[in-house]
Amino acid sequence: MRKIHVIGIGAGDPDQLTLQAVKAMKSTDVFFILDKGEEKDDLVRLRRELLDAHCADGTFRVVEARDPARDRKAGGADYSPAVVGWRSRRAEIYERLVADELGEDECGAFLVWGDPSLYDGTLGVLEEVLDRGAVAFSYDVVPGISSVSSLAARHRTGLNRVGRPVQITTGRRLADRGFPEGVDDVVVMLDAHQAFLQYQSSTDGGVGGVSGVGGVGGVGGVGDMGGMYVYWGAYVGTADEILVSGPLDEAAPRIEALRAEARERKGWIMDTYLLRRNLD
Amino acid sequence: MRKIHVIGIGAGDPDQLTLQAVKAMKSTDVFFILDKGEEKDDLVRLRRELLDAHCADGTFRVVEARDPARDRKAGGADYSPAVVGWRSRRAEIYERLVADELGEDECGAFLVWGDPSLYDGTLGVLEEVLDRGAVAFSYDVVPGISSVSSLAARHRTGLNRVGRPVQITTGRRLADRGFPEGVDDVVVMLDAHQAFLQYQSSTDGGVGGVSGVGGVGGVGGVGDMGGMYVYWGAYVGTADEILVSGPLDEAAPRIEALRAEARERKGWIMDTYLLRRNLD
Ligand SMILES: C[S@@+](CC[C@H](N)C(=O)[O-])C[C@H]1O[C@@H](n2cnc3c(N)ncnc32)[C@H](O)[C@@H]1O
Ligand SMILES: C[S@@+](CC[C@H](N)C(=O)[O-])C[C@H]1O[C@@H](n2cnc3c(N)ncnc32)[C@H](O)[C@@H]1O
Repeated sequence: MRKIHVIGIGAGDPDQLTLQAVKAMKSTDVFFILDKGEEKDDLVRLRRELLDAHCADGTFRVVEARDPARDRKAGGADYSPAVVGWRSRRAEIYERLVADELGEDECGAFLVWGDPSLYDGTLGVLEEVLDRGAVAFSYDVVPGISSVSSLAARHRTGLNRVGRPVQITTGRRLADRGFPEGVDDVVVMLDAHQAFLQYQSSTDGGVGGVSGVGGVGGVGGVGDMGGMYVYWGAYVGTADEILVSGPLDEAAPRIEALRAEARERKGWIMDTYLLRRNLD
Repeated sequence: MRKIHVIGIGAGDPDQLTLQAVKAMKSTDVFFILDKGEEKDDLVRLRRELLDAHCADGTFRVVEARDPARDRKAGGADYSPAVVGWRSRRAEIYERLVADELGEDECGAFLVWGDPSLYDGTLGVLEEVLDRGAVAFSYDVVPGISSVSSLAARHRTGLNRVGRPVQITTGRRLADRGFPEGVDDVVVMLDAHQAFLQYQSSTDGGVGGVSGVGGVGGVGGVGDMGGMYVYWGAYVGTADEILVSGPLDEAAPRIEALRAEARERKGWIMDTYLLRRNLD
């Protein structure tokens, strides 16, 4: 029976690999490296470096393939036709990879960025491949350090306050729904549009769409949310890491400028932040 | 200048240690092991085993101390007198440990269960020690695999659905506030009272206080929340690991029985679960 490891590799620092991940890598015959077709060669390169560092030459093969990008404009609903279509395209590709490239008694692995449990589609795709029934395999998951844990560690902060919740969400969701109700600590991932800008307390800033947002969260207008604090990080754990923290009103313009500059320079960006409502 | 590492050690499996954590441990002169005074000798033992496995004999010292337990009955508010009092008692102990046991140019470490960013007080205490000004040190944080990542990996599930948020909260909060609004995936930690029992769809079960809860979440009565799914795990990553997943109505009674039995047998329990609202 074919076996597959889904291995979380951490979010940038090669030393975030766990001992369990290293062991799983050493027991792997075929690594599937999926390239999202974006400008993120750096991320593919990191995976190659991990293999070089931990797996002996000649003990493994690498198979690279193109992972189809999701049409983000089509929205985030799980069962929308666009998402369903994208999912089955991915499932076909993964199915073919496993069937064609992995021998019946071999072990394959997917090296997943960060932790496989957060905003990563690999597990869903593998389940879909199994559902299709054309190829059989067993699989296990090795947890990884997520960009969220990594961000918190670099800022030396907790995610939650004592006895209180923390929510992890996306930039699109924050922009569409406003600051979530009943929670004061929100981690935002996958934010292409800097949704945090809306939460600056200055209402004179000319930031579009501000007045409509506060009502959603039931906490009064955005102007009343002064005292927000942000912990932001881009390329956390890598040589390009940039960290900014501080009261949102002071930090937001700096983040905006640094983000634009870094994105321009590298051609792509990955950033995450914790938005913290003041409890005083 | 004294230096301190706050090192996440993972949530039970010694192989969840990261390479970064191992390096930090090897550079440590003094390990502070704080015992919560509960029946969790196993947790202290795991830390000892990690030291034996990764640090050469004679290169480090271990200092054990009693970490004062928080009076949980006093509630969870950050600024309640009980919490403030408990915090400064902890800060005094940590201050004394650092001042008395760590040489001026030595490196100390706290080995934190799981990830230091989730429901752990170590960073807050160290900040308080620095604020008091009696002893100076620099510190850094090494992220760890949290029990949340570990739970998800063992169940081979993601925490969020595509484009949707996930909230991490406590059992007390879930019991007091009901299922949070605007989120369908909720991870519950620190739950001594099995708050999930309330979310079974059968309203005839005689579970106390059910009728008042549904309204909080604005999603109708608890009876309408049928179709919830649960991924539960106790002692995840250890030899005692117990996992249960399934539709909540079927899984809840099994979890209740397994939990009671395990707690009785071992004398203590640590469990976490993901409660997932059906999106269909
Ligand atoms: C598709 S999600 C994958 C998350 C990943 N599974 C994890 O556990 O971090 C990609 C998002 O993760 C965040 N991210 C990943 N790596 C990051 C890093 N090194 N620094 C900052 N953000 C990062 C960004 O918000 C990015 O948009
Ligand atoms: C004080 S919190 C510390 C959490 C820790 N910092 C982490 O990242 O997992 C303790 C809670 O974590 C959860 N927990 C920790 N280790 C666990 C394990 N191995 N299995 C299940 N739950 C665990 C339980 O909910 C427990 O009540």
